[in-house]
Amino acid sequence: MKAEIIFIGTELLLGQILNSNAVFLSQELNFLGIDCHFQTIVGDNKKRIQEAVQIALQRSTDFIITTGGLGPTSDDLTHESLAELFNEELKLDQKVLNHIEELFKKRNKIMTTSNAKQAYRPASADLLFNSVGTAPGIIWNISSKCQSPNNTIILTFPGVPREMQTMWKEVAKPFLAKKTTGGQVLVYKELKFYGIGESALAEKVQDLLDLDDPTIAPLAGKAECRLRLATKAQNQAQGLEKLKPIEDKIFARVGEFIYGFDDQTLEMVVAEKLKSQNLTLAIAESCTGGLLSKRLTDLAGSSAYTKMNIITYSNESKNEILKVELSALNSFGAVSEEVALQMAEGIKQLAKTDIGLSITGIAGPEGGSPEKPIGRVYIAISYKNLKQAQKFDFGHGTRSDIRWLASQEALNYLRKVL
Amino acid sequence: MKAEIIFIGTELLLGQILNSNAVFLSQELNFLGIDCHFQTIVGDNKKRIQEAVQIALQRSTDFIITTGGLGPTSDDLTHESLAELFNEELKLDQKVLNHIEELFKKRNKIMTTSNAKQAYRPASADLLFNSVGTAPGIIWNISSKCQSPNNTIILTFPGVPREMQTMWKEVAKPFLAKKTTGGQVLVYKELKFYGIGESALAEKVQDLLDLDDPTIAPLAGKAECRLRLATKAQNQAQGLEKLKPIEDKIFARVGEFIYGFDDQTLEMVVAEKLKSQNLTLAIAESCTGGLLSKRLTDLAGSSAYTKMNIITYSNESKNEILKVELSALNSFGAVSEEVALQMAEGIKQLAKTDIGLSITGIAGPEGGSPEKPIGRVYIAISYKNLKQAQKFDFGHGTRSDIRWLASQEALNYLRKVL
Repeated sequence: MKAEIIFIGTELLLGQILNSNAVFLSQELNFLGIDCHFQTIVGDNKKRIQEAVQIALQRSTDFIITTGGLGPTSDDLTHESLAELFNEELKLDQKVLNHIEELFKKRNKIMTTSNAKQAYRPASADLLFNSVGTAPGIIWNISSKCQSPNNTIILTFPGVPREMQTMWKEVAKPFLAKKTTGGQVLVYKELKFYGIGESALAEKVQDLLDLDDPTIAPLAGKAECRLRLATKAQNQAQGLEKLKPIEDKIFARVGEFIYGFDDQTLEMVVAEKLKSQNLTLAIAESCTGGLLSKRLTDLAGSSAYTKMNIITYSNESKNEILKVELSALNSFGAVSEEVALQMAEGIKQLAKTDIGLSITGIAGPEGGSPEKPIGRVYIAISYKNLKQAQKFDFGHGTRSDIRWLASQEALNYLRKVL
Repeated sequence: MKAEIIFIGTELLLGQILNSNAVFLSQELNFLGIDCHFQTIVGDNKKRIQEAVQIALQRSTDFIITTGGLGPTSDDLTHESLAELFNEELKLDQKVLNHIEELFKKRNKIMTTSNAKQAYRPASADLLFNSVGTAPGIIWNISSKCQSPNNTIILTFPGVPREMQTMWKEVAKPFLAKKTTGGQVLVYKELKFYGIGESALAEKVQDLLDLDDPTIAPLAGKAECRLRLATKAQNQAQGLEKLKPIEDKIFARVGEFIYGFDDQTLEMVVAEKLKSQNLTLAIAESCTGGLLSKRLTDLAGSSAYTKMNIITYSNESKNEILKVELSALNSFGAVSEEVALQMAEGIKQLAKTDIGLSITGIAGPEGGSPEKPIGRVYIAISYKNLKQAQKFDFGHGTRSDIRWLASQEALNYLRKVL
């Protein structure tokens, strides 16, 4: 089956916002096995919205998905444009109006008359309920309304990502899955990898990538990669059972690189391990300048494992605060295994935590030398009897790349130790 | 004049990457005064690329801009598709081939035969030189090749943002500016604001927003806003002179909120001030968990002003390391003016810097109370005789919003003090 997406909003054509909806919807359609060959971006203009819909219809599309233009203002024109294009009246849905009124009450705001506009939709269109906002969409089979040979269905969503995504998950996805899978549900599981490159991973599982059921799709991430296993089944539990043998196969081959599943991030996995083992962690960062600390405190509840972290940029601070020996700084330099080890030990003692972790390196763009090139990073851990440092070379990247990679490696190091 | 953009790449239709090129090109076209009513995203497929170009031509477009599909692999089809569509041969450009060979030599890599493909272009198309990569584009006036009533010109760019943007700035922008301004150059200046909301700013300069020359456009940012002043002139200097009276007017009305110009960020402005005044800064963060330290060390050369920063999450660490009095922690709580002041003083003493800055607050989603709601943040500075704290309430945001706003306010506070 084929879908086209029409993103409606002059702000997109002016470059005022990034079209993150495109990523979400494209991935979701791909996942449902629905081909999407064209996407169009068009402004808040009735004639041009209609033109975009007509072009999509001419390409015999099964589903036309729109985002944007469902707001209360006069330049929100999606439903008006569609109603006019297919010669239909807009009709008030009293239930939707009540829902909008309730939302305003809950938020202690006064509803304006323009908001009532959002309760109107083409008379023969079904409601695509919006549980989290005032802008509902429609699901409209327009096959009787046009010469399209396909049984084309239009689905409209607001442009606000949170609302669009909720409506997708709650209503549209099950609806589309039914159309494409004949009543079965799609079940999927993402395996998340760190420490293995995309092509190396693909090689290891090459034979599995051609399977028809379950399907396995490699996906890229920011210095990590993913495999998505998907199948169709009567229910979630049966689906997961069907995925299990393949998952086991993948684990047997590359399990050491799997750090988590689905929405988990490296920092979440580390945070969970720290919390479940009742451990505290203190970090001494140099080149990453607080990035690792930021990532581990981005998570709610991070005070369970964080007491203090420190960024020691200067040699003096490494010596005075972390008690790194001047002799080590002088003979090996701040970017060295020796100093990394002493920093990890020092921060553990200072913060009185179970684990001390340190990062010291050269993020560039200045400061490299033939012996210690830009991208050289040492990461050390002190935990019980383990006092260990690892050396990395992340050359060829920007300052920001090198800092990110260093924080990824540090998290992965912690994960493996825990 | 009118342009359409065609983004070519199956990875876009699969949602594997965010289309950041859309934001850049849309803003640039808007800035040049070129209308863009449609943008299309299409996969690496000859027939569909040609279809998208034909539809754009039917809409009497002056410029068709494409990104993507200029790589060396067999699914990079942009130039092949265009040549076929307009019945033209592909011809080798020996100069381009030499340039590609040189790039490979410089990078110590071996050039494959597939890379030579990138030196071919439709015979009558001009080169759109790529100074930073192996994928040049074309500038091709195809009016003799098709029935288009417009004098349509096609410009092709690679999909890699850095290469596309460089080619845009070096070649395409001056080329398009000449077409749209009759030989004059576009001169612009962005004023960057912090501490004033978009609508409040718009109100203050309402009368200026309707000017025809210079034009003034309000742009949104992440917890900040911008005004872009633009005009046409014989050269850059004359243009800036034309902008000056308006700039002065804006400064007179809202100058206190202007922190910088063009590509400057708050952290860059603070870093410049610290460096030019030869000052060092130490930061003690609590709720922001390293975010501020990260932002100030994102910048190359940050070791000039950074010796050490600290994240003191626990009360113990605030007391033991920063010497915040237990009595202050007990009577006022960690999130209080008193503790913020002592943290700023403590980190200044500990790091022996000129300035001490602290942030303590409640980022949520847990930990709020009626007296100290989520979003309450204190920021304090100790610098010479100045020992001052400010209280903020950033309620109604996510943890990530609150942390970002706190880091923004801290940078703005520093900016004003310096």
